[in-house]
Amino acid sequence: MKKMQQLYEGKAKKVYATDDANLVIVDYKDDATAFNGLKKGTIEGKGVINNKVSNFLMQMLEKHGIPTHFVEQLSDRETLVRHVKIVPLEVIVRNIAAGSLSKRLGIPEGQKLGCTVLEYSYKDDELGDPMINDYHALAMGLATREELDTIAGYALKINQILGDYLKDANIELIDFKLEFGKDADGRIILADEISPDTCRFWDSTTGEKLDKDRFRRDLGNVEDAYQEILKRLLGE
Amino acid sequence: MKKMQQLYEGKAKKVYATDDANLVIVDYKDDATAFNGLKKGTIEGKGVINNKVSNFLMQMLEKHGIPTHFVEQLSDRETLVRHVKIVPLEVIVRNIAAGSLSKRLGIPEGQKLGCTVLEYSYKDDELGDPMINDYHALAMGLATREELDTIAGYALKINQILGDYLKDANIELIDFKLEFGKDADGRIILADEISPDTCRFWDSTTGEKLDKDRFRRDLGNVEDAYQEILKRLLGE
Ligand SMILES: Nc1ncnc2c1ncn2[C@@H]1O[C@H](COP(=O)(O)OP(=O)(O)O)[C@@H](O)[C@H]1O
Ligand SMILES: Nc1ncnc2c1ncn2[C@@H]1O[C@H](COP(=O)(O)OP(=O)(O)O)[C@@H](O)[C@H]1O
Ligand SMILES: [Mg+2]
Ligand SMILES: [Mg+2]
Repeated sequence: MKKMQQLYEGKAKKVYATDDANLVIVDYKDDATAFNGLKKGTIEGKGVINNKVSNFLMQMLEKHGIPTHFVEQLSDRETLVRHVKIVPLEVIVRNIAAGSLSKRLGIPEGQKLGCTVLEYSYKDDELGDPMINDYHALAMGLATREELDTIAGYALKINQILGDYLKDANIELIDFKLEFGKDADGRIILADEISPDTCRFWDSTTGEKLDKDRFRRDLGNVEDAYQEILKRLLGE
Repeated sequence: MKKMQQLYEGKAKKVYATDDANLVIVDYKDDATAFNGLKKGTIEGKGVINNKVSNFLMQMLEKHGIPTHFVEQLSDRETLVRHVKIVPLEVIVRNIAAGSLSKRLGIPEGQKLGCTVLEYSYKDDELGDPMINDYHALAMGLATREELDTIAGYALKINQILGDYLKDANIELIDFKLEFGKDADGRIILADEISPDTCRFWDSTTGEKLDKDRFRRDLGNVEDAYQEILKRLLGE
């Protein structure tokens, strides 16, 4: 497997082509951003942790029947993944009110939602990732009706599997963001990452935040929180 | 029918109790507001026109099988309607991109949408009527699954009936906002109003705006636009 030219540099990862058109390498950075890039910083060691955590959770999900882009970890920061065309939706699943939902709807952070909430944002930095619904996604041609149904089904199943799994590590899954992509055969698979950057993880006992909110809100001990998640999941 | 104490004063209408608990009187004002009350003004004669236009369109919809709150027009500005518990959702139907959708999603105003878009806002002035989806509405207990399905069905049917009807008056139905309520028997019916305050009406030939956008955007000839809609629909 040969690492070739860089295809894209995002806020948290770089993506490289390989000599196989169906495979790319993602390279996790320590860069951290928040509020649509307004706040910028570095979280020492984050790239290494997110790479490991995401790969670990994707493999766990695969075992439970969720197709993912994961192929093979290549190094501390690099992973070989299936090359997909990303569906430009941030797929957000929420169990407990927090963050933008609390603010927008006036529901206190930490309040259990009456039911699991599934939300889509149109992945567009310039527009600030606006919230949309199924109709908008269809009208804009972001996905087909069938693709949206597949994505919703996977997202809710992942919530179930991941929530149960994390409970055993004394972690409460508050909410998380997923990205899906279409592979060469048009199959929808889970892509991007699942990490403390993209999930809200609260200690089940103390309620302590173990995720990127420590960075967003200047709560301190940011690196420690990422390290703690790595330890609880991979025992490292 | 006795007009009794005022129950509520909204931005565009007052609501009065009657001696029948199942009936209320709505009284249409000339007050105009925009941008969640930030812009305030008066549109001379608006109350009279909206009362007539809304009653006319509600009766037309009733004939096509849509249950509405309309009972009887009492005067130029007053109408007797069924008393409902308003479902706190602004139900927005869009055929052509305009207004907040254009701004939020970067779709030029006037562009036909790939499919009809149904959108909900949580009717809460303090929160600025934030957009929500079905999951949020369910999680917040704003409506049941069955009620949301009924509302969506009616909204799309109303779009069909109203769009066809207006076409004959050389009016293009760009988008509109509906409110539904639950009557004493728990039945969902169309409430509030359908008027140039709550719809975007464009002249089919010239594209001229014949609705509240003339007020919102200081386009002039606001009263004339409302008058023109009255004339095209009721021949007055
Ligand atoms: N399997 C994949 N194939 C192609 N692109 C992917 C894959 N997984 C993730 N990506 C994309 O890689 C990009 C880099 O990630 P990231 O740094 O998080 O970017 P961004 O700043 O856009 O969020 C993102 O646009 C993401 O959608
Ligand atoms: N049939 C009805 N029964 C009870 N309330 C109604 C009915 N129709 C409309 N309403 C409510 O009457 C209020 C007055 O209307 P409006 O001036 O438009 O108020 P707002 O400023 O809340 O939009 C609104 O809250 C509306 O939901
Ligand atoms: Mg990203
Ligand atoms: Mg109103």
